[in-house]
Amino acid sequence: MEATAKEVARLRELTGAGFADCKKALTDAKSFDDAVKILEEKGQKRAEKVMAQERETREGLIHSYIHHGGNLGVLLELNCSTDFVARSDEFKTLAKELVMQVAGTDPKWVSFDDVPEEVRAQMRQNAMSDPDVQKRPEHLREQIVDGKVKKQLATQVLLEQPWVKDEKITVGNLVKDVIRKTGENIVVRRFTRYALGE
Amino acid sequence: MEATAKEVARLRELTGAGFADCKKALTDAKSFDDAVKILEEKGQKRAEKVMAQERETREGLIHSYIHHGGNLGVLLELNCSTDFVARSDEFKTLAKELVMQVAGTDPKWVSFDDVPEEVRAQMRQNAMSDPDVQKRPEHLREQIVDGKVKKQLATQVLLEQPWVKDEKITVGNLVKDVIRKTGENIVVRRFTRYALGE
Repeated sequence: MEATAKEVARLRELTGAGFADCKKALTDAKSFDDAVKILEEKGQKRAEKVMAQERETREGLIHSYIHHGGNLGVLLELNCSTDFVARSDEFKTLAKELVMQVAGTDPKWVSFDDVPEEVRAQMRQNAMSDPDVQKRPEHLREQIVDGKVKKQLATQVLLEQPWVKDEKITVGNLVKDVIRKTGENIVVRRFTRYALGE
Repeated sequence: MEATAKEVARLRELTGAGFADCKKALTDAKSFDDAVKILEEKGQKRAEKVMAQERETREGLIHSYIHHGGNLGVLLELNCSTDFVARSDEFKTLAKELVMQVAGTDPKWVSFDDVPEEVRAQMRQNAMSDPDVQKRPEHLREQIVDGKVKKQLATQVLLEQPWVKDEKITVGNLVKDVIRKTGENIVVRRFTRYALGE
């Protein structure tokens, strides 16, 4: 399609991508929505590339959130590679969104990798003994159990949860979005959540 | 000594004790300082009595502290028995002092009881193999080791630490003081301290 100045501007506003990228995406795409999709995929790839570089992330912020009246509190460490990014508005905003997410949804772990092996094993065992699974052909069961466990864990794993403010994206996507914007790897290091008298 | 109105007033201001208690303490005491001591002991006993009642403590506050620049954070739960005390200035002030203490001194545990048995055992073993201890008569060694371990642990146990703002009293005394003032048991339930990139 043709990339008009108005559409390029709208696309830039929507995706945060640069002028040249937006123009190219519109030219390549069949529709405006298609251009958005192209840019999102490109951004996702860029974020994954930054994450894959595994640059040391020892800068960042410790951020806290105390629920009205002091009956709930969250402490969270968000890391990045440079003090420059740590002090950026995007990074600070992300830290705020994350503490609110933890306060609201009570996740148990940051990522799948943090789930202890014994928890996985127990969940796998439960899923395997499910009659629905036992009915299926034996060579497919492992795969089905993997899927079930992952789905159950997703609600308790911060980065896999749907973001409370926009359930269409996961918290992990929200983080990747800031990685793409800042060009720096960002890692949710750890969090603690206290509910009064629990 | 004689209890003049002026001295009773001064004593009340200093100790926070009631009029009758102050008058009695001054009458019984040989000096003003002596009266202060009498009241402090009485207060201590009252605090211990309240603590011994072990009334359920499920009210309170979750309080946080973030060090300038977000490079250090503390989350702490302080419990009491009633919402009324939880909302009092004394209680809120205590919560603030405690998060500052944790931020400044990095304790590992709330009380001696929270120190894991394996940590104690390791420390006992180290202390026992100390040549100074081995020189002492065998029947005294256990006691000497107990003393050494307690002293070493005290720096890492919040309630045993000297209060950063007044090293003459321990953090435990600070808590007892608020127990005496509010007449309600107060329990430091738990805390978490994050230092950036540690």
